[in-house]
Amino acid sequence: MFRPTCFLICSTLLCGVAAAQDNPDAASAPKPFPAELREQLARVRDAALADDYAYGQVSHLTENIGPRISGSPQSDFAAQYVADQLREVGLDAKLEKVMVPRFVRGAETAELVAWHGQTPGTTQKIIVTALGNSTATAAEGLTAEVVVVRNFDELKRLGRERVANKIVLFNEKFDGRKAQAGQWGPAYGEAVAYRGDGAKRAAELGAAASLVRSVGGADYRLPHTGWSDKAGIPAGAVTAEDADLIAHLVTQGAVRMKLVLTPQLLPDVPGFNVVADLKGSEHPEQVVVVSGHLDSWDLGTGAIDDAAGVAVAMEAAQILQKLHIRPRRTIRVIAWANEENGGRGSRGYAEAHAAELPNCVAAIESDLGAGHPLGFETMINAAGLKWLVPVQETLTPIGANILEPSNYPPGADIAALGKAGVPLFGILQDGRTYFNYHHTAADTLDKIVPSELQENAAALAVLALALADMPDPLPRGR
Amino acid sequence: MFRPTCFLICSTLLCGVAAAQDNPDAASAPKPFPAELREQLARVRDAALADDYAYGQVSHLTENIGPRISGSPQSDFAAQYVADQLREVGLDAKLEKVMVPRFVRGAETAELVAWHGQTPGTTQKIIVTALGNSTATAAEGLTAEVVVVRNFDELKRLGRERVANKIVLFNEKFDGRKAQAGQWGPAYGEAVAYRGDGAKRAAELGAAASLVRSVGGADYRLPHTGWSDKAGIPAGAVTAEDADLIAHLVTQGAVRMKLVLTPQLLPDVPGFNVVADLKGSEHPEQVVVVSGHLDSWDLGTGAIDDAAGVAVAMEAAQILQKLHIRPRRTIRVIAWANEENGGRGSRGYAEAHAAELPNCVAAIESDLGAGHPLGFETMINAAGLKWLVPVQETLTPIGANILEPSNYPPGADIAALGKAGVPLFGILQDGRTYFNYHHTAADTLDKIVPSELQENAAALAVLALALADMPDPLPRGR
Repeated sequence: MFRPTCFLICSTLLCGVAAAQDNPDAASAPKPFPAELREQLARVRDAALADDYAYGQVSHLTENIGPRISGSPQSDFAAQYVADQLREVGLDAKLEKVMVPRFVRGAETAELVAWHGQTPGTTQKIIVTALGNSTATAAEGLTAEVVVVRNFDELKRLGRERVANKIVLFNEKFDGRKAQAGQWGPAYGEAVAYRGDGAKRAAELGAAASLVRSVGGADYRLPHTGWSDKAGIPAGAVTAEDADLIAHLVTQGAVRMKLVLTPQLLPDVPGFNVVADLKGSEHPEQVVVVSGHLDSWDLGTGAIDDAAGVAVAMEAAQILQKLHIRPRRTIRVIAWANEENGGRGSRGYAEAHAAELPNCVAAIESDLGAGHPLGFETMINAAGLKWLVPVQETLTPIGANILEPSNYPPGADIAALGKAGVPLFGILQDGRTYFNYHHTAADTLDKIVPSELQENAAALAVLALALADMPDPLPRGR
Repeated sequence: MFRPTCFLICSTLLCGVAAAQDNPDAASAPKPFPAELREQLARVRDAALADDYAYGQVSHLTENIGPRISGSPQSDFAAQYVADQLREVGLDAKLEKVMVPRFVRGAETAELVAWHGQTPGTTQKIIVTALGNSTATAAEGLTAEVVVVRNFDELKRLGRERVANKIVLFNEKFDGRKAQAGQWGPAYGEAVAYRGDGAKRAAELGAAASLVRSVGGADYRLPHTGWSDKAGIPAGAVTAEDADLIAHLVTQGAVRMKLVLTPQLLPDVPGFNVVADLKGSEHPEQVVVVSGHLDSWDLGTGAIDDAAGVAVAMEAAQILQKLHIRPRRTIRVIAWANEENGGRGSRGYAEAHAAELPNCVAAIESDLGAGHPLGFETMINAAGLKWLVPVQETLTPIGANILEPSNYPPGADIAALGKAGVPLFGILQDGRTYFNYHHTAADTLDKIVPSELQENAAALAVLALALADMPDPLPRGR
């Protein structure tokens, strides 16, 4: 998944940071990084750029294990696999149980059964997928007229009279031009509102079912699933092409659809966060979390969302072990459970580890794919930005030197830690094509460019080492 | 569909043509186009560039009627619709019966049931679609080990011993870089060989089934169907991503797949060529065929393959009627039946009209989508090229002035006419993305850029009018 934020690059602020560092009398002046640490950062960067560990892990998670939706056998098997792999490189790895929802996709078919110009006796196929929290239609489906709206205002104007017992289609287009222009966060945010809340709003007006135009920027008849708030009605996503088709046909006359969605939302089952420590040499109680989420949606194999994130987090520890670098604080690799449809992994961790969160000195997450990294989004004490100039300098050769303050937690799973005052970092990738594949059957290994994954591993490992070995922990609070 | 050829642009030849035209004593010197015709050509071009007739027709064929595979109710309904539409603009339209195959897609699912690293008790979904002429598996499917080959040589080296009772996967990649570089014909030709002949070759070695990596250049987990030679075994196409997955996993150990393909190849049924004449004012017996094919594969709605071709052919006649231009020869609009899986429409026409083919003065087809037109491929007497310089001049403002001699018939449906010596023309579009959508569920209306369809209509109408009204018919023979 991914939470939309503003990605405006704050170059003025960065200039300000550099200037402040020139003044050693500033109250919040950081202690300089020791030369040895700076040398280690460069060494870690270069080693990660030449290492295929992360790619190997993504490959195994996606191809050998496959889709890993919460509560599935594959999800548990993947947790065990990741723990085993981290033990193999010398980490102290545990599976920490959290109860997770169990969404099991069923039949999902749709067809238009009546429209203007129809060939007598025929139907027209619509490609649809169920959203998380969709209830099921009857096995034989439901058949109703489709009403098309662009937004919530249009829905409201239609009112209960014209919505009740109908299938509502929210036809808000994902703005691919925005995404291509670097504003993928706003592009996603604008469209995903209907995936998240559409079913609930439609249900409030008595709709029989709710459909959303798939949230994504490609045009390959690809349905995008994702989380949808519980609404008590069937909720699905049709492809952009099918949304266009229906929207055109309803301008010519009534369109009736037969919709079959039979997902099951089963009772909660145990799931597992993988929590693996590379113990700190001086302050083992001080923890830097480096993380991605291990669960994925079920349509694809979850390569960019988010096996890649887990794999680069794993490599942050692996590469230090390989180079025999032991930072002073603990680096804790976490492969989160249930990011996609519940967030139970991160909430469970925050609860179980509440007592030690004051010693969690930073948390990093990678959950925007595996594209070329541009740097990090941060939610930290502003004074801390200048402490990290050596990280920026180390990552300048690979173009990953942005440190961009964010008003929102830069990672869904670390948000709960942020509430406890933990400084947060989310790796900021080139996300222009991320939402073309995200939550679809096409989120597969081939979408990852090995050299870009190496850059991500390098960026994550450098930041993790810096946070775990810098003279003092970052200042807390905002 | 589309038949691969060499698209090398023969600029030297075109220069030679221009030079020859400067010499009025040349034996094959054309009669100049009358000024009125040249003015009409420009008027037709400009009117087509501003007309939305073709787009309206594509819209109706794809959205209101939908997929039009041979023998389907939609196919017949579309033929009736096109005939009615052409009558409405004053043409003499007939439905000419031809017997066509009736391919009815059934269940098509696949899953890996055993591989290295598998989560116990799970399977992994493979996205597959049946190819034309595939036989059916049992309803419960067949389960066998998969062997992966890149080409026919590799298959041969494996031999019967390692192929018999296995599922063969031909994993030849479509070369998207070639397609992007303008060489979409060779890119398609290289890959489609396995779709066409793979099943037959695999069957000769006793294979249980044959799969091909989908022929196309996109990476959106999209299966591409298409014609496959009769082989007596189930034949399908998996997506590029699934081919990658299987190819990777077989390097680690045996991979077993359960494959369910239950298409039916039913007895032939009547289908219809739509044949509609705009009678010539002086030589009604002389005919210029302007055509596209009305049938489509069943996965998408056949917008670029080939409702677009039918629509621009329809507009060639419509725009002349609208402008009250009546050429001296007959313009015959043909919407061919059964191009995709049999070619019965074009063969049936050539047989039924054999006696009049000496009077068929030219045949034009549009069957490479609806992208910006670059000009025409031609299979005509070389002397005729220079006769058409006024057409090139008329189309120069829209960049559609290439006249490129081809060694192959530039259109599958007009090939049979070419055998009778009819000069052939195929409109040459920018086909860089054509094979990303071709034969897939994503061949839908949105893939057509209205202004580019207008350019196609303009190019086709200009050439048709020129061929139908120029002083003498083009010279015949090669």
